[in-house]
Amino acid sequence: MNTFGKLFRISIFGESHGSHVGIVIDNCPAGLPLKFEDFVAELNRRRSGAKGTTPRKEADLPRIISGVFDDHTTGAPITILFENTNTRSRDYSLLRDIPRPGHADFTAMKKFGGFQDYRGGGHFSGRLTLGIVAAGVIAKKLIAPVAVDSEILEVGGNSNIQKAIDKAIEKQDSIGGIIQCAVSGMPAGLGEPFFGSLESVISHMIFSIPAIKGIEFGSGFAAAGMWGSEHNDKFESVDGRTGTNNAGGINGGISNGNDLVFRVAVKPTSSTHQKQHTMNLKTGEMVDLEIEGRHDTCIALRIPVIIEAATAIVLADMMMQAQMIGRVIK
Amino acid sequence: MNTFGKLFRISIFGESHGSHVGIVIDNCPAGLPLKFEDFVAELNRRRSGAKGTTPRKEADLPRIISGVFDDHTTGAPITILFENTNTRSRDYSLLRDIPRPGHADFTAMKKFGGFQDYRGGGHFSGRLTLGIVAAGVIAKKLIAPVAVDSEILEVGGNSNIQKAIDKAIEKQDSIGGIIQCAVSGMPAGLGEPFFGSLESVISHMIFSIPAIKGIEFGSGFAAAGMWGSEHNDKFESVDGRTGTNNAGGINGGISNGNDLVFRVAVKPTSSTHQKQHTMNLKTGEMVDLEIEGRHDTCIALRIPVIIEAATAIVLADMMMQAQMIGRVIK
Amino acid sequence: MNTFGKLFRISIFGESHGSHVGIVIDNCPAGLPLKFEDFVAELNRRRSGAKGTTPRKEADLPRIISGVFDDHTTGAPITILFENTNTRSRDYSLLRDIPRPGHADFTAMKKFGGFQDYRGGGHFSGRLTLGIVAAGVIAKKLIAPVAVDSEILEVGGNSNIQKAIDKAIEKQDSIGGIIQCAVSGMPAGLGEPFFGSLESVISHMIFSIPAIKGIEFGSGFAAAGMWGSEHNDKFESVDGRTGTNNAGGINGGISNGNDLVFRVAVKPTSSTHQKQHTMNLKTGEMVDLEIEGRHDTCIALRIPVIIEAATAIVLADMMMQAQMIGRVIK
Amino acid sequence: MNTFGKLFRISIFGESHGSHVGIVIDNCPAGLPLKFEDFVAELNRRRSGAKGTTPRKEADLPRIISGVFDDHTTGAPITILFENTNTRSRDYSLLRDIPRPGHADFTAMKKFGGFQDYRGGGHFSGRLTLGIVAAGVIAKKLIAPVAVDSEILEVGGNSNIQKAIDKAIEKQDSIGGIIQCAVSGMPAGLGEPFFGSLESVISHMIFSIPAIKGIEFGSGFAAAGMWGSEHNDKFESVDGRTGTNNAGGINGGISNGNDLVFRVAVKPTSSTHQKQHTMNLKTGEMVDLEIEGRHDTCIALRIPVIIEAATAIVLADMMMQAQMIGRVIK
Repeated sequence: MNTFGKLFRISIFGESHGSHVGIVIDNCPAGLPLKFEDFVAELNRRRSGAKGTTPRKEADLPRIISGVFDDHTTGAPITILFENTNTRSRDYSLLRDIPRPGHADFTAMKKFGGFQDYRGGGHFSGRLTLGIVAAGVIAKKLIAPVAVDSEILEVGGNSNIQKAIDKAIEKQDSIGGIIQCAVSGMPAGLGEPFFGSLESVISHMIFSIPAIKGIEFGSGFAAAGMWGSEHNDKFESVDGRTGTNNAGGINGGISNGNDLVFRVAVKPTSSTHQKQHTMNLKTGEMVDLEIEGRHDTCIALRIPVIIEAATAIVLADMMMQAQMIGRVIK
Repeated sequence: MNTFGKLFRISIFGESHGSHVGIVIDNCPAGLPLKFEDFVAELNRRRSGAKGTTPRKEADLPRIISGVFDDHTTGAPITILFENTNTRSRDYSLLRDIPRPGHADFTAMKKFGGFQDYRGGGHFSGRLTLGIVAAGVIAKKLIAPVAVDSEILEVGGNSNIQKAIDKAIEKQDSIGGIIQCAVSGMPAGLGEPFFGSLESVISHMIFSIPAIKGIEFGSGFAAAGMWGSEHNDKFESVDGRTGTNNAGGINGGISNGNDLVFRVAVKPTSSTHQKQHTMNLKTGEMVDLEIEGRHDTCIALRIPVIIEAATAIVLADMMMQAQMIGRVIK
Repeated sequence: MNTFGKLFRISIFGESHGSHVGIVIDNCPAGLPLKFEDFVAELNRRRSGAKGTTPRKEADLPRIISGVFDDHTTGAPITILFENTNTRSRDYSLLRDIPRPGHADFTAMKKFGGFQDYRGGGHFSGRLTLGIVAAGVIAKKLIAPVAVDSEILEVGGNSNIQKAIDKAIEKQDSIGGIIQCAVSGMPAGLGEPFFGSLESVISHMIFSIPAIKGIEFGSGFAAAGMWGSEHNDKFESVDGRTGTNNAGGINGGISNGNDLVFRVAVKPTSSTHQKQHTMNLKTGEMVDLEIEGRHDTCIALRIPVIIEAATAIVLADMMMQAQMIGRVIK
Repeated sequence: MNTFGKLFRISIFGESHGSHVGIVIDNCPAGLPLKFEDFVAELNRRRSGAKGTTPRKEADLPRIISGVFDDHTTGAPITILFENTNTRSRDYSLLRDIPRPGHADFTAMKKFGGFQDYRGGGHFSGRLTLGIVAAGVIAKKLIAPVAVDSEILEVGGNSNIQKAIDKAIEKQDSIGGIIQCAVSGMPAGLGEPFFGSLESVISHMIFSIPAIKGIEFGSGFAAAGMWGSEHNDKFESVDGRTGTNNAGGINGGISNGNDLVFRVAVKPTSSTHQKQHTMNLKTGEMVDLEIEGRHDTCIALRIPVIIEAATAIVLADMMMQAQMIGRVIK
């Protein structure tokens, strides 16, 4: 299913080489100021262009076709379209026999019985995250002054990011990275015990982003090696502030008012210019595959803004549930 | 919300010191053989008793009060109760002023305004996982021959598990651990792109389990340091088997038929016999807190069966959606 | 699925001849005063005993096993059980071959493949509405001072209710009735356009009650024969009060602040002492069937309190969505 | 919320005077043949043009922008847009002070705080049903050979339909009507006891259609005046066929294999050329209101195809749940 959220609900659609990708945002409170210009900065953060990103260039201009009137949200579903302009027509039929390693070619075939739009990744394309970034713009406005920020901690196992990218470009291979996200100004009391825990809902959303393969909150995997007395964050202020933040701002699934902190692992892009030795699943013979097309050397570079959007979407939904965001914004 | 699942739906309820904890399992296919004895082995795996687990002993006998007739599921909701017998009456009111570090005492207060049942962790108690294990028994039957297995990789940062536990007991502190879960016999085609990705739904469910602070699929965080050409799993068999399994059995959110593999980080139990320097939030003065009661030195020891249950529940739901499990079992 | 509601969520379970029927109420706000005695009056309204109701007598004492602490809701799921005590052991196996006309015997067999609990209607039993009445008690408290009242307009096509019942008892047949429900004190602005319209959600819930076969809002079916100029309710007060109420308090799916009014049609109980000429579906021969057991001559007599409960449950959910009910009641 | 369905899910968006209205259909099985021409006949049935319908003319050409590839559904969300071309620019600001009787002007104001798009009914417009008709085309294909048919039984209280319309046009007033819908070829076993009953889900969807104020299944309101022995449909065939169909094809919420039959009441269009005496809610003075614009004299004439679409959408969802429709159509 392509829908996420309980009260602040988003639905994404589109294919890489179809006419558009887009998003419907349902149940957004009425009265939020919103206009075209609000989207520009965040969409630019997601765009390619920097060294290490794909040469496919798209204008990525949002077209709002419903739910906004007189520069304010109306309370009706907001639909935003992005045109696909820079698609290249070529023959993708080979992918049916020789699915690209690490891609969704094989699993899409299994799931959709061969009817999937296989051009450029089809519905699995990272272009679908355009809608998530757009919804994130709205969500960030709703949750303000709560603020979400992400940064790249390392790429290719190296904290010297530019150097790692240069090396990857030279080697004509792709690399992954680790991104940290922190939310400041968090109210206490968001989330639920068990299935509605903040970790549950955030991780659910974050793993929707292509290429994410791990997530950890607070001290995360390192916590497994700590003593309880060392891991427990002791209170230092009557409002619940703690000296350390090993919990990443969450106890029992619920925010404690300290910064919400998590890190995610981004795998290297599956598309690489390296030759790959894989099987032709139709004939059973091993072949050397070279993937044509325009790839990101390090997709992690474009993901921080998507992580922020995803997080803001979750928080907007949670804050609406907690009645910290009204149904009409005044 | 205390409900999880789209077609195979579970709802948990109860408090640590209430009369019962339990679960309702809705929309389970009719005709599945099921009787009391089926639950014994798995519930025993979750029980305390081993070195490093709490001295609180409960019989944990499941009482099925609906949905089963003539030793088969009927298709109606299955309700299973577990009585709480070994509760100790004592004064928990101190927790209102001095919330235990690392516990949900503070966040529950913030969320439920002081009306939460604070005795023994109340609704946040690990006892609620009894229902999850019971539902897991049913889910494992439904998904067979697909099989879910978990093992502890390390506790307290040490792969020599017994030694680490002895050391923690001696030090009177708690420790965490890392658990790996693997699913064999996986069909290809389970999961969805984006919000219904296998990683999304599994992580959502897994983070419902108290004390989990991280999850990674396949090569996970290590993938962030790999080359794409190295990370991509090349096909070696016409049915989609790959030589390596860096993807953990998932591409584009959908199972590829290889083993599904993930690891989770369990933090050390918040309850520890160590004295903790924390704040009395009512008076603002720093105090030394010693937590009475019966604790697990290493809760990770009891979690593998819960991880398996949680995973089987997700897979049962997914396989019902994919029509790999019928509505009536014959 | 046996769950209803978005924020105020109920899940029912149990069978007529099982050990219990019950309900789980999830996400009820914390802090609502609630104790055993609160349920007595409403449950008594649903009980049998009056002329025209079944001789099966049950104590119908609610047992609250979770979610309430110190006589207040905690915010955790509230589970309420009702024991089945007055079940009669007899042979129901004939129903497999000769399903009772008008009952769910045949459809349950088709849906659950013969694994359903067929004793006394099993999960299809009207006893499941005990939980709905209990949830209604809580919902009515939440929505106060909004008040829900139902009355029987007619039974067996006759507005002289006692006379119609006497006649049916004499004839040893069953009769139906029409019930009107009115909600006073309605706030304006509840409901949504289209799929979340008040009519949609109320009718969804109301048709959950066994034996309901029709619903109409405001002037309902009569509206189909009116002129638009006659049907339109003209405003007579600046707060939106109208002189007539043909709309039943709803425009565009959303409450307008006038009384919410609807009527439902209750069919005659399928169980009747009359001999029925029907088919043995195993042998194909026509047979005369006489249904043993204890029946309601006029089930409509016991339904008003259930209609009220169902309506209050919908309104509680809607008012939570509209933030007219807080997450903690103070 | 603007989403309906569990497995076959639709989401509608748009406003009467915005650039487009449209629909997203999520989780439609892959492999269903689908092209532009498939929509023409059904959309034409909904279009205006006949005597008694509005003079506003729209081409209503569907534009499929996602989810269809090589004339087959792909399994990804199907998005269909309809352009609004024939909008008339005029001043609607008067509606803020003098909401039109019977319209959603007042309730929209209350719900959305004045931020709603009030032009031509905005998001409450009947134009939103374009998407429902389009989704109905797809649903009808999925459920074939199950077939849904609707007919108008009466308009303005008169079964001589043309005569009633002529009279209304002459009187310059609007009239309602009664529509019957019948589904042939129904499989037994669709639906659930209680909250997922066929009556619950169908009525939920049907009341989403603007102007519907009543629904009854089988003998419906008439059942309230019948004897049980008379109302019960006796079996006459080993496959469950009954001689009468008072149940409308549903027992215990579940289809019994006989035709599914229900009737709906359509109120007269709120827009009428008659002068209406209503209140200016700003000033409190009573005024005579004449509504300009283009109206349907009898909106019921255009509703049968929408009723069919709505019903087919429900059945497609139910049949997917019952695994009577595969995830890939072959």
